[in-house]
Amino acid sequence: MKQTPRRTWLPWLDVDVPGYCTSPAETAAFELEAGCASLGIRVPRLSLDASMGDGYEIIQTNEGTTIAGGETGILYGTYAWMEAQAVGEPAPAGIQRPFYPLRMLDCWDNADGSVERGYAGRSLWFEGGRLTWDGARVRQLGRMLASVGINALCINNVNVHGAADNLIEDEGLPSLSRFARALQPFGVRLMVSVNFAQPMRHGIDTADPLDPRVRDWWRLRAEAVWRAVPDLAGFLVKADSEHRPGPFTYGRSHAEGANMLARAIAPHGGALVWRAFVYNCGQDWRDARTDRPMAAYDTYAPLDGQFDDNVILQVKYGPFDFQVREPVSPALLGLRRTRLALELQLAQEYTGQQIDLYAMNPMWRELAEDLPPERVCAVAAVSNLGRDDNYTGHPFAAVNLYGYGKYAWNPRIDPETVIRRWARLTYRLPKPQEDALTDMLMGSREVYEKYTAPLGLCWMVEPGTHYGPNPMGYEFSPWGTYHRADRHAVGIDRTSSGTGFTLQFPPELRDRWESPESCPDRLLLFFHRLPYDYRMRDGRTLIQRIYDDHFEGAEEVAAMAEQLAGLALPEPDRTEAGERMALQLKNAREWRDVVNTFFHRLSGIDDEQGRIIFP
Amino acid sequence: MKQTPRRTWLPWLDVDVPGYCTSPAETAAFELEAGCASLGIRVPRLSLDASMGDGYEIIQTNEGTTIAGGETGILYGTYAWMEAQAVGEPAPAGIQRPFYPLRMLDCWDNADGSVERGYAGRSLWFEGGRLTWDGARVRQLGRMLASVGINALCINNVNVHGAADNLIEDEGLPSLSRFARALQPFGVRLMVSVNFAQPMRHGIDTADPLDPRVRDWWRLRAEAVWRAVPDLAGFLVKADSEHRPGPFTYGRSHAEGANMLARAIAPHGGALVWRAFVYNCGQDWRDARTDRPMAAYDTYAPLDGQFDDNVILQVKYGPFDFQVREPVSPALLGLRRTRLALELQLAQEYTGQQIDLYAMNPMWRELAEDLPPERVCAVAAVSNLGRDDNYTGHPFAAVNLYGYGKYAWNPRIDPETVIRRWARLTYRLPKPQEDALTDMLMGSREVYEKYTAPLGLCWMVEPGTHYGPNPMGYEFSPWGTYHRADRHAVGIDRTSSGTGFTLQFPPELRDRWESPESCPDRLLLFFHRLPYDYRMRDGRTLIQRIYDDHFEGAEEVAAMAEQLAGLALPEPDRTEAGERMALQLKNAREWRDVVNTFFHRLSGIDDEQGRIIFP
Repeated sequence: MKQTPRRTWLPWLDVDVPGYCTSPAETAAFELEAGCASLGIRVPRLSLDASMGDGYEIIQTNEGTTIAGGETGILYGTYAWMEAQAVGEPAPAGIQRPFYPLRMLDCWDNADGSVERGYAGRSLWFEGGRLTWDGARVRQLGRMLASVGINALCINNVNVHGAADNLIEDEGLPSLSRFARALQPFGVRLMVSVNFAQPMRHGIDTADPLDPRVRDWWRLRAEAVWRAVPDLAGFLVKADSEHRPGPFTYGRSHAEGANMLARAIAPHGGALVWRAFVYNCGQDWRDARTDRPMAAYDTYAPLDGQFDDNVILQVKYGPFDFQVREPVSPALLGLRRTRLALELQLAQEYTGQQIDLYAMNPMWRELAEDLPPERVCAVAAVSNLGRDDNYTGHPFAAVNLYGYGKYAWNPRIDPETVIRRWARLTYRLPKPQEDALTDMLMGSREVYEKYTAPLGLCWMVEPGTHYGPNPMGYEFSPWGTYHRADRHAVGIDRTSSGTGFTLQFPPELRDRWESPESCPDRLLLFFHRLPYDYRMRDGRTLIQRIYDDHFEGAEEVAAMAEQLAGLALPEPDRTEAGERMALQLKNAREWRDVVNTFFHRLSGIDDEQGRIIFP
Repeated sequence: MKQTPRRTWLPWLDVDVPGYCTSPAETAAFELEAGCASLGIRVPRLSLDASMGDGYEIIQTNEGTTIAGGETGILYGTYAWMEAQAVGEPAPAGIQRPFYPLRMLDCWDNADGSVERGYAGRSLWFEGGRLTWDGARVRQLGRMLASVGINALCINNVNVHGAADNLIEDEGLPSLSRFARALQPFGVRLMVSVNFAQPMRHGIDTADPLDPRVRDWWRLRAEAVWRAVPDLAGFLVKADSEHRPGPFTYGRSHAEGANMLARAIAPHGGALVWRAFVYNCGQDWRDARTDRPMAAYDTYAPLDGQFDDNVILQVKYGPFDFQVREPVSPALLGLRRTRLALELQLAQEYTGQQIDLYAMNPMWRELAEDLPPERVCAVAAVSNLGRDDNYTGHPFAAVNLYGYGKYAWNPRIDPETVIRRWARLTYRLPKPQEDALTDMLMGSREVYEKYTAPLGLCWMVEPGTHYGPNPMGYEFSPWGTYHRADRHAVGIDRTSSGTGFTLQFPPELRDRWESPESCPDRLLLFFHRLPYDYRMRDGRTLIQRIYDDHFEGAEEVAAMAEQLAGLALPEPDRTEAGERMALQLKNAREWRDVVNTFFHRLSGIDDEQGRIIFP
């Protein structure tokens, strides 16, 4: 039996947005009528003031409530007001504006309907090589995105292949245009990932960005694309990365490559978002001098100041690739004359795959300690969405989409506030249960960290799938991801006396990470190679800390499983969450035993508490 | 440009066998005419004597040569005589008969045209879910098989899935019948792998072998199948193995399962070949008591004597799964009241994938030291064939198909004689080059063994692909394949004081393998857990032996590459062999460095000769 798609954190909006709304203001009016009827409250007045843009103000007077806002702001204000009503808290006072003007969701959806690193079912808008969608579901999606202020949706995988190449071709534009119109009522503008070598499909024998034929092809193509989709937000490009084509093929820099595309789309007001995910994915493991985390800074720092104004360099938060624990990417700190976007990943590729609980706002808050939000001008997050009834595979994984929108609107927002709000909106549990759910989600990331790779070591995950433990899985691989654990020690020395990675950071961070004494525990093995008997600040040895974390992590999952069983969740969420928790518990025990055994075999040092480590 | 399919070791037979030959005797007559014309010699007389069966005699008198033989023997004698003429050696004297009456080639071809563990292109007879073939190529294949006496061809994967289920259904029988007729002129009888749960496709809600509906279904199905293919050699079954259905589902023994099928096909003279590849493929790595090599004996020894006369239990040569070095399977020695077939694997799944050189006759000769050929009544080999122009991917891999036929005819044949004969037939090189090629192939297996998993340890290969090194790849897997290497020692104690595996063997072998002092080096780490500083008979430590083997193995490949470059091979064989040798050299160096680094990290012991071991 087909279920009605879930309403996630907007349960009171229990009717679909109709297809006749064509603008955010019309959507706001409909949503208010429907929402207030459902909540049993009076409908406020709407007041459109185009000059406010994304901003809004909720004005309470004796005559009632007025929601004033710009073209999109009026819709954001509408959801903000309803949210406050639904949870019985005051609406935000004063004019509200988003911190980042561009709040992107990057979907790695393939034209064939699969989703790269997707854990929530197939694509919501691709199938069989073409754009095709269920109108009601896409309007529900638009509602979800608008309710948290996400305003740009990149609809196709950065690895552009197969029929996705057709999106910006003449044959693809009519459906791209229709899809853009489907999301306009929610203030969501589309973006598309493009293939840097696209001109070569048209009889041009090069994709050299300095070749006039290439430049002209892109200029004409951009005219055609924006004619079909006038509000397209821009192009996203993954070039010279993991076997994607790019400027390096032609001896050109990434500034030359990005600027060529940026100039083609500039007349139309589009942004050229260029991913900075460049490294040697064919490294010889024997090569101990090349250090992958250094790649982005090495590639882009010399280009700082050379990018056009409508280029945005999109940089992953850490210098590796969405690991549980990484330092901030030095490229985000070091490029001061380049417009930067911070790239996050809601899809739980390395973080439990929407089976294991992993709420991300606490992680983003930690990130802000080393990366002031002002350092970047935009944010992007890899989507965790799919065609599953609940949109995110695990019903609780919706907290990350919700939380990402809140973070993009206000990167200084308190993580617990966000998580508790999501829980209250979604489930309306009795207060002790709401507390339990909030605590569980707040702590979920540290629990996951404890039972997986220790102390910032990274990459002990199963290659390929990226789920479950494999301590040696990347050790002899070409991916540049090694820990070189031996019988004495573990980790890579990335200090100035090692690979020199710390030298890419500003002095304050460099000094803190340069020495194991001042380096925080959570990043200790990211920056340092240390013997197993290294004495940590709290008096424990390194190996004992590894054992302790892994035993504790698995125990904490067992405790979470008990807490979860006590929550009065509605069905099917209760069953879905329960089934996944059973898998998480199995996964946590597997990680615990594999990692402990791995290090015990190497070190020969027993657990001080005599707990079971298998031989 | 489509090339003419290669003639492999029968280059003088440079015209296709015509489609009008319908019996081996007719084929013999054609081949003699064609071959003698090509060789420029007089055509001998053929004399059919049905009583001789597979046997033949080549009679030389003053009036000329007569080849006398049975229905198939006359064809075998024809090829034997031509082979002798082609290489300028005397034909075998006296009546020749094969040692094994049933000489099977098991093809793991899927109905979709792919070949499981195939390294020579797609299936020669399946594509798009159905049987379809190029008549000329299949007749060339028939010629190759008949020339070395292979008389049964199981055409589909033991993992029966997809459209292969249809082979024995009414819709599949016409093409099965036609394919059988295509190979009749070569004395090759078909076999088919069947799905134990096949009756469940026909509204029967069980595959319980004791259920009368199941028994009746198979009886009627066998009647239909043999009506369509009267000379079908039998059914092959993989049951209760790696997720295949089988009698265990219904609480029945494998004797009950096999006998039910055997009785259905007995009236038609068919053999029921039952694979003994049963083990727990969902083992918990923490479980150190379960020892996978013990599974086949544990499962089948209690059933010894319970199988019907037309059941043949097909057992892999080693107790694991086609590893480079294993002891003989104890099931082959211990089941003395069961008809047994020895299963070999020509497909180089774990042995270099038809990239790395690996000639197998020396390995089979070693096997015979512990397994008297009389212990089994039949042989089977997993095919290394595919649609590549040269049939075997690597042109030299043909030596294994050729050599297997010779071995099946006479398991005591000298490996060097076989390999030299193949080389001479195929290439007619100058004597020093023929010597070099023969030496290279004779030694190829030991070279491969040196640079891969040491001393019978097994399973250091990349999981999934089974090519290239991954020392920890199976260590935490569910496949029951562990070495449990730690900083002190490596290996599993499989003696009577360990898992007890040695107790499954007859006293002579048990005693030899029970102690590390008497256990041959090549099996040392299969049976024993030993510290790295264990002193071996030749005075070297275990770890030094591991290092030495790996350095030597890679050096020996480099030497082979030089030898190969000096051979005056015809094109395209020269290019194909050269390209593969470059890959083998890379593979050997990767194995050397990964395995040496792995053990150096664990043991901390340096190479005595100071060669490079990467950190």
